[in-house]
Amino acid sequence: MDLSQYIAPVADFPIPGVAFKDITPLLADPEAFAASVDGLAAAVEGVPFDRIAAFDARGFLWAAPLAYKLALPLVPIRKAGKLPRARLTESYQGEYGVETVEIHDDALKPGESVLLVDDVIATGGSMLAGCRLVERLGASVAACAAVIEFTGLGAPKALDGYRTVSLITY
Amino acid sequence: MDLSQYIAPVADFPIPGVAFKDITPLLADPEAFAASVDGLAAAVEGVPFDRIAAFDARGFLWAAPLAYKLALPLVPIRKAGKLPRARLTESYQGEYGVETVEIHDDALKPGESVLLVDDVIATGGSMLAGCRLVERLGASVAACAAVIEFTGLGAPKALDGYRTVSLITY
Repeated sequence: MDLSQYIAPVADFPIPGVAFKDITPLLADPEAFAASVDGLAAAVEGVPFDRIAAFDARGFLWAAPLAYKLALPLVPIRKAGKLPRARLTESYQGEYGVETVEIHDDALKPGESVLLVDDVIATGGSMLAGCRLVERLGASVAACAAVIEFTGLGAPKALDGYRTVSLITY
Repeated sequence: MDLSQYIAPVADFPIPGVAFKDITPLLADPEAFAASVDGLAAAVEGVPFDRIAAFDARGFLWAAPLAYKLALPLVPIRKAGKLPRARLTESYQGEYGVETVEIHDDALKPGESVLLVDDVIATGGSMLAGCRLVERLGASVAACAAVIEFTGLGAPKALDGYRTVSLITY
């Protein structure tokens, strides 16, 4: 199944010059959405991991069904101010400005291995910040997974040394 | 399974006086998380609907596995400025101030029936705004579903006339 046909390009969103990839057509097609969830699971088959970390907000859309399918614990990595208990924070330069992500400081145990899941890897900034949160808690990164990966915006260099998997590449 | 034991109360978050319900322990327990997804599916069994609408951001955590499990189209209802194409907007008085939710204007077809899914129904304001978006597109609300429902914050009155289902009541 060619999943790229379910991604709608939108020019100049959210700011001029950015070619946004709209994932709502993929969500709207149950067969394609299932293929994307199952495809991510297949892409990391054989890679052992203990927990799935989900990026706020669109990463939730794939991480939650993956956690449900694989019966693994789900850990949210959220934007600033959303997690209610003691947390670690990482800031990074995103595509549109400085962004901050957070994780509860009891969300992972030392020695655990974590699959990080987002909808898109663009610059790799948010994914790298997530990797740092995982590692600051003494856990390790099994892989960085996304439905869509851009290869020309810096992610391959930013995430050098981490295993990345994706279903659609631009 | 008593799902309420997987909800952690957090006092005075995000503002003083609010007793926040932290759902991350539920996400971290695969058996409990599966029971919550399956429980929502069971709660709407026999209620016909064509699509599942998911509230940004925590609603995504339940709506996405539900859509995956039931093989139904998933439609995001997002906070302001997140959806890239032509959209409808509804504002409402939330617990912490005026909030805005949006839906793509081609996300539903007239006559379709929609299940709305969020993590929590508190005042009912966001859920009611979602119902209005659904109805403005000519579709109807099959039910409003949430993992957690507060009965003392105005939701029963705000959502009068709509079927609501939930797994944990405060």
